[in-house]
Amino acid sequence: MNKPWQDKLRKITPYVPGEQSKDPDIVKLNANENPYPPSPRVQQALRAFHADGLRLYPDANATQLRTALARHFGLAADQVFLGNGSDDVLALCFQAFFCADKPIFFPDLTYSFYPVWCSLFHIPYRTIPLDDQFRIRPDDYAPANGGVVLPNPNAPTGIGEGLDFVRRLLDNNPDAIVIVDEAYIDFGGTSALPLLDEYENLVIVQTMSKSRSLAGLRVGFALASPALIAVLEAVKNSYNSYTMDSVTLAAATASVEDDAYFRQTCAQVVRTREQTARALQALGFTVLPSLTNFLLVTHPAAPAQALFDALRARKIFVRYFHLPRIDNHLRITIGTDEEMDRLLAALRDILAN
Amino acid sequence: MNKPWQDKLRKITPYVPGEQSKDPDIVKLNANENPYPPSPRVQQALRAFHADGLRLYPDANATQLRTALARHFGLAADQVFLGNGSDDVLALCFQAFFCADKPIFFPDLTYSFYPVWCSLFHIPYRTIPLDDQFRIRPDDYAPANGGVVLPNPNAPTGIGEGLDFVRRLLDNNPDAIVIVDEAYIDFGGTSALPLLDEYENLVIVQTMSKSRSLAGLRVGFALASPALIAVLEAVKNSYNSYTMDSVTLAAATASVEDDAYFRQTCAQVVRTREQTARALQALGFTVLPSLTNFLLVTHPAAPAQALFDALRARKIFVRYFHLPRIDNHLRITIGTDEEMDRLLAALRDILAN
Repeated sequence: MNKPWQDKLRKITPYVPGEQSKDPDIVKLNANENPYPPSPRVQQALRAFHADGLRLYPDANATQLRTALARHFGLAADQVFLGNGSDDVLALCFQAFFCADKPIFFPDLTYSFYPVWCSLFHIPYRTIPLDDQFRIRPDDYAPANGGVVLPNPNAPTGIGEGLDFVRRLLDNNPDAIVIVDEAYIDFGGTSALPLLDEYENLVIVQTMSKSRSLAGLRVGFALASPALIAVLEAVKNSYNSYTMDSVTLAAATASVEDDAYFRQTCAQVVRTREQTARALQALGFTVLPSLTNFLLVTHPAAPAQALFDALRARKIFVRYFHLPRIDNHLRITIGTDEEMDRLLAALRDILAN
Repeated sequence: MNKPWQDKLRKITPYVPGEQSKDPDIVKLNANENPYPPSPRVQQALRAFHADGLRLYPDANATQLRTALARHFGLAADQVFLGNGSDDVLALCFQAFFCADKPIFFPDLTYSFYPVWCSLFHIPYRTIPLDDQFRIRPDDYAPANGGVVLPNPNAPTGIGEGLDFVRRLLDNNPDAIVIVDEAYIDFGGTSALPLLDEYENLVIVQTMSKSRSLAGLRVGFALASPALIAVLEAVKNSYNSYTMDSVTLAAATASVEDDAYFRQTCAQVVRTREQTARALQALGFTVLPSLTNFLLVTHPAAPAQALFDALRARKIFVRYFHLPRIDNHLRITIGTDEEMDRLLAALRDILAN
């Protein structure tokens, strides 16, 4: 393309979304999706939704869902911010909170979207290496910076840290916004929620995609001090006043109101994860300790890329990263017990040959 | 607020979304919402939607809806881009296409979000005055610029221009991207659609909020050359890979597939608009010629602000703008015939006192 208007276009390396397949025969363990359906109340909410109301704009304040989430977390509604998936929430957080000239800090092995947003919004950044156990050291984040963002538990390692870790991070950063991305928190991690009252510069971001089985609905949220939520709202209202549609608000509220189902399916994923970790260890894999719905594993004798290809040939999709330090690892999403049995049988077969 | 992290926050004047009220007794003619419900097929799509599938991420390429829209417009799927309402589409267009140092041009009286996005994305701009008939003169947009964006029909004037106007605008701007915001096109305007084959730098943005009665669902789209759609996709995939949720994709597709209902309700809004315009003229109002679902009107004897207040006291909400040149005008959305009768009766009553 060589056109007179070429110089007006944004030069950007396209981020290509991960592979999706609708082949029902595939065991899809590559996108950290939940193997269980959402709460039955979500289906009821969709059936009961009165479509005539769609002629009107949605409630821009999303009061119903904000209130339900605030009640769930024991917060006030003005401590909750909603977005179109946690990627939308994080993108708005980057624009709202990372406006300094100094670089923001995040781990070298972490959610791959962070550097993409930095590039899009022209935010300088520095990546901080994980230690040799793949753990984040909070004191590495003490030097002057423009802000901190990191997932806890981290992805793709799966390793989660406790409240002392987050407190240390915050104490090291009294003059910056610290975003803790808790996308995987509901699978056994320790949320920073109890620290919200104490630290006005803490932002927690969570999603309904994983633990609430609602990846297809696009709902994420931030929990923070009213002062920070107000800045997020201002930026969001300067971008798109109505990000949350009326159907999504009703369906997501139904999910939040079904706490029993939520706890039960999360607990089942955790049980399957622990069983799978032990079975993989029995096959000779080194398995990083995970507090998420996935496992990062490596085998001393079988190269990860070869395992990835062999699993794929058996219609089992896992995730392989061409990245330094983890290019001999696989990330395996926790599916149903049956799916994990199929995975383990395939691995046994592959390793035996 | 005076905190050590204060300097890291985005300084921005919050855009405050328009007033919403759920009082069923209110005649709501202030947000250009459609008075008719969406196609009955939308309700059917919601009822038939299988919620279990929400555990999976949506189709990031939104193939079903893109294909339906491409068929509707006689385009290829790679000429269609989808977003979370046309505000999302326009915000991404601003980031994708307005990357020059020169200011972009748009009318002085137009959609109030354009300068907000310029501020958010640090895009220089210049506003071009409408002529004394509130019309856009395409030759005013001929000087060197960083891009052009304007609604056709324009808002809040309601005035629509023909194909020659858009062609002139494009011929004046061979080296910039020209965005024609056709939010109101389906109420009698002339779409720039036939020019897409000829001008690779033309972007048409439309919405399902008005003519398809789906403001609550949040669906907008851009139609353009595959080259420009690819840049939009790259920017979108650097912001949020999954903006369109699975329920919305199914419901919006159902709407697009019901062309008869769409044409019928649009035609009814146009009929009511023409009747209302004549009735308002009979009451002494000057009514700008509208090709939209609203009328911009002024009365020689009754100040607009006073009319606004008096209507409000009667639970009839219209829109008043504290803006130069139109601060003695009211913008009135076209409702049902019954709603317009109630409006006209109220105005008769107010003007008689």
